[in-house]
Amino acid sequence: MAARQQMAPVLRRLRLPKTPTNLGRQASLQQSLSRPVRCFSTSSPQRFQRTAPAAAAQSKFTSESYPDIKRDSRFAQLTEEHVAYFRELLGSESAVIDGVTSSDAADDIEPFNSDWMRKYRGHCKLVLKPASTEEVSKILKYCNDKMLAVVPQGGNTGLVGGSVPVFDEIVINMSRMSQILEFDDVSGTLVAEAGCILEVADQFLAEKGYIFPLDLGAKGSCQIGGNVSTNAGGLRLLRYGSLHGTVLGIEAVLADGTVVDDLCKLRKNNTGYDLKQLFIGAEGTIGIITKVSIQCPQRSPAQNVAFFGLESFDQVQQAFRAAKGQLSEILSAFELMDEGSQALVRQVTNNKRPLEDKYPFYCLIETSGSNADHDSEKLQAFLEDVMEKGIVVDGTLAQDETQIKALWAWREGITEALSHLGGTYKYDVSIPLKELYQLVEDTRARVDAAGLLGDTEEFPVRAVVGYGHMGDANLHLNVSTRRFDERVEKVLEPFVYEWIAERQGSISAEHGLGVMKKKFIGYSRNPTMVGLMRDIKTTFDPNGILNPYKYL
Amino acid sequence: MAARQQMAPVLRRLRLPKTPTNLGRQASLQQSLSRPVRCFSTSSPQRFQRTAPAAAAQSKFTSESYPDIKRDSRFAQLTEEHVAYFRELLGSESAVIDGVTSSDAADDIEPFNSDWMRKYRGHCKLVLKPASTEEVSKILKYCNDKMLAVVPQGGNTGLVGGSVPVFDEIVINMSRMSQILEFDDVSGTLVAEAGCILEVADQFLAEKGYIFPLDLGAKGSCQIGGNVSTNAGGLRLLRYGSLHGTVLGIEAVLADGTVVDDLCKLRKNNTGYDLKQLFIGAEGTIGIITKVSIQCPQRSPAQNVAFFGLESFDQVQQAFRAAKGQLSEILSAFELMDEGSQALVRQVTNNKRPLEDKYPFYCLIETSGSNADHDSEKLQAFLEDVMEKGIVVDGTLAQDETQIKALWAWREGITEALSHLGGTYKYDVSIPLKELYQLVEDTRARVDAAGLLGDTEEFPVRAVVGYGHMGDANLHLNVSTRRFDERVEKVLEPFVYEWIAERQGSISAEHGLGVMKKKFIGYSRNPTMVGLMRDIKTTFDPNGILNPYKYL
Repeated sequence: MAARQQMAPVLRRLRLPKTPTNLGRQASLQQSLSRPVRCFSTSSPQRFQRTAPAAAAQSKFTSESYPDIKRDSRFAQLTEEHVAYFRELLGSESAVIDGVTSSDAADDIEPFNSDWMRKYRGHCKLVLKPASTEEVSKILKYCNDKMLAVVPQGGNTGLVGGSVPVFDEIVINMSRMSQILEFDDVSGTLVAEAGCILEVADQFLAEKGYIFPLDLGAKGSCQIGGNVSTNAGGLRLLRYGSLHGTVLGIEAVLADGTVVDDLCKLRKNNTGYDLKQLFIGAEGTIGIITKVSIQCPQRSPAQNVAFFGLESFDQVQQAFRAAKGQLSEILSAFELMDEGSQALVRQVTNNKRPLEDKYPFYCLIETSGSNADHDSEKLQAFLEDVMEKGIVVDGTLAQDETQIKALWAWREGITEALSHLGGTYKYDVSIPLKELYQLVEDTRARVDAAGLLGDTEEFPVRAVVGYGHMGDANLHLNVSTRRFDERVEKVLEPFVYEWIAERQGSISAEHGLGVMKKKFIGYSRNPTMVGLMRDIKTTFDPNGILNPYKYL
Repeated sequence: MAARQQMAPVLRRLRLPKTPTNLGRQASLQQSLSRPVRCFSTSSPQRFQRTAPAAAAQSKFTSESYPDIKRDSRFAQLTEEHVAYFRELLGSESAVIDGVTSSDAADDIEPFNSDWMRKYRGHCKLVLKPASTEEVSKILKYCNDKMLAVVPQGGNTGLVGGSVPVFDEIVINMSRMSQILEFDDVSGTLVAEAGCILEVADQFLAEKGYIFPLDLGAKGSCQIGGNVSTNAGGLRLLRYGSLHGTVLGIEAVLADGTVVDDLCKLRKNNTGYDLKQLFIGAEGTIGIITKVSIQCPQRSPAQNVAFFGLESFDQVQQAFRAAKGQLSEILSAFELMDEGSQALVRQVTNNKRPLEDKYPFYCLIETSGSNADHDSEKLQAFLEDVMEKGIVVDGTLAQDETQIKALWAWREGITEALSHLGGTYKYDVSIPLKELYQLVEDTRARVDAAGLLGDTEEFPVRAVVGYGHMGDANLHLNVSTRRFDERVEKVLEPFVYEWIAERQGSISAEHGLGVMKKKFIGYSRNPTMVGLMRDIKTTFDPNGILNPYKYL
């Protein structure tokens, strides 16, 4: 982490009268902006530490946390015969982790049973690691015939318990299908297996002058099959759009083993219903994605990151409008953080803050373009405009890659900082922009009114904070607690969901449904929609063996 | 149309040694590029003339052109009782055009029975024009109960016969549902009724500093409901992406009258299967879209258009790569035209060509950005680069809006020029970029070898030409004929479809399936996919009343 002194507080006095000294500052700003900053991945690879067996042994089973969920008795219990079939099919010793016929494998299986937050934990006794689509197909056909439930698993970096079993579902882990298969350097089309790690794909593309049109904190661990299955949003949706627009094709295996070959590599193909779209965001409930074809944009050679302090959410909105208008085609991220979230990062990391003073809100703005001088000029004009108008009070601008990373860490480090402080109630929501932050204020007031929020140990809630992707109207509302207290949950739910539903927001902007939000879908989808979704599920997976107890 | 002398042939001598004269030319280029060109709609509004009754009377019925298609006997015949119900329901006199109980309405109905190319013609006797979602719902519920087949119809500008009846299906015309309902000028989200004309929506957005993320020649007539139902691609998909990425929500009515309210206005919403995606490109076969919510980007204040001559398709590809790399975020169109297509435009319009000499290929490049000076500088650097490397032989650059329109007319005018010359076999295909133009050459060689291609009247085929959206690997192969000759069709089909299938291309990149390509879907989709599509159709429209005889 770069310390404060490495940052150039060049914007601080931009509004002062133009004395020679201040002119010098402006020249310095211009100069620094003109310096080309090479492109790189701004999100520091975050290798999620799998839960160590010892620790996991202490974490609660999902079946205990959610006592309402009962094992579906239609599903068969795993037997030695099943295991023998899979051993024969997959051949390799390492492709089958067998806790059915032997209890020695318990420790090896545990990481596949637990999510990285240690919030969800299943009772799975068999992990399969197919190496080809054909193997996935044979596994599923067998499971469907024998009524064995399965959980498809990518990098297991999800936040809603979608990628780990609840009971004894077989984990089908995709990590052995990790190859990049094809890249067309004229069109920018990449084809890769589902288990390919996002960062690996992005680094491959970087060498070709392209970029993966998705970026998120977990990129060092998450897999593109999982990204597509969960319709991951991430940091640069603002610029490159959703996976529904960038994914060109998929190959997937249905519950009965049927291979759906829709691995189209064309940008346009209007021949029938766009079935692949159903798999994007289906969380593995209608098929297992085995390959992905995706349209990748050119990588921008120039990048700038600025970090602002703002006095009100109204000013944040004004800054966003100004950025959209003036930075337009080079704007690649507009992130929001409130003071509470930054205080927690500071508390955990002890890093010096980017700005000297505290402000109720901070924004991180990133530009990516093909010409560093042009980008700097646009950014400078924007900065002058928002400071002259008093929209932005204070700010700093990264001067090199190290500083860019350091600034991003104040945004990307929030999740990790919170995880160091104890339990967190996390809500990933989308609300029309004007009311985006009101949810945090209303929630904080409610928790406070219930006498649950305070600075000392007697209060179960440490802080109610908000941050997120302003550009996508995507807020992460986080309630940081000191200990479990059921009064907190009662104050929060269903209050938060009702608040969102009243504003026609989404109770899950990008994290998905999984186990966590299965029962809350009604707050964002009407019964007609849910009914149609159930029809789709039944059409694709009539026995319901794919990722049961979740989603719908 | 601007004449040649209005164009500045400034690029012609860019490769000459730098004499003072040539330096002057370069300065002039720079100066002209620096002049800001205000943003406007480049595609001249093309109001499609509806087929006049007299002429239509002469055009062939689809049921005659496609004798294999038989009327589905499960569908009821329209009676006076049905008409009385609809009259009562819709109230307004103009909302029901009744050719069932009276023969006086025949002329009024004809335009709804025929497509604008006069290629498809149905036997419809009843046109309904609902004014609300509720009315659409009641119409469909009644039709579903009575087994009356319907055809949803937008602007009726399609090219594959999808928007007109084949037999006596009721036309449900959406033109009375044309309101813009909502616009959020911070997020850029527009909500409008399905019958809103694309150009009306775009002009509304222009006043707010935004742009509709879709543009196509028929914008003056086509409706956004139809655009979404056909997943229209158009001219700027390269920049703004597909409707699968930009459409945020839809409201649609299912065959049984159920209203699917998925009119989400959020960029992110991961709560269940993304059902709206199925309606995008479904050509009205699973429901009628009544409202659309769409993410609109900022309108770029600066725009430039350049027009090049190139010696080979290999150079076209090189130019495309260079444009992607150097124009990057400001590139908004890269269109391809071959000499044959331009000769036809010249023949019909008699306009002076943009370039003095003829070349095998021409490209039209458009940039759209937020800063005119920056864009000009980028464009200039690009032009110098491609000319120095000998990729581009000759070119011209529009100096003002009139010239921009004039250059676009050489691309957008091809379809109209062809329609003036007689019948055309039109193939709208997508093929991996490297082989994009090979299809035109192979087809031409095949038609020529069959002795069908020539300059004089004895040859049925006038020309085999190619043009299209290079940026999307989307080619329009057009075979211009002098008269109908079944030998031509036999030489073309299934040859063209097989050629595309061998290269995993799409037999319909953006035009859709309709009547024309229903039976050819197998060339682009495997039986598994088609089977799943049939399952979807059955789930949403079990009686099959929506747009029958088409699509699947």
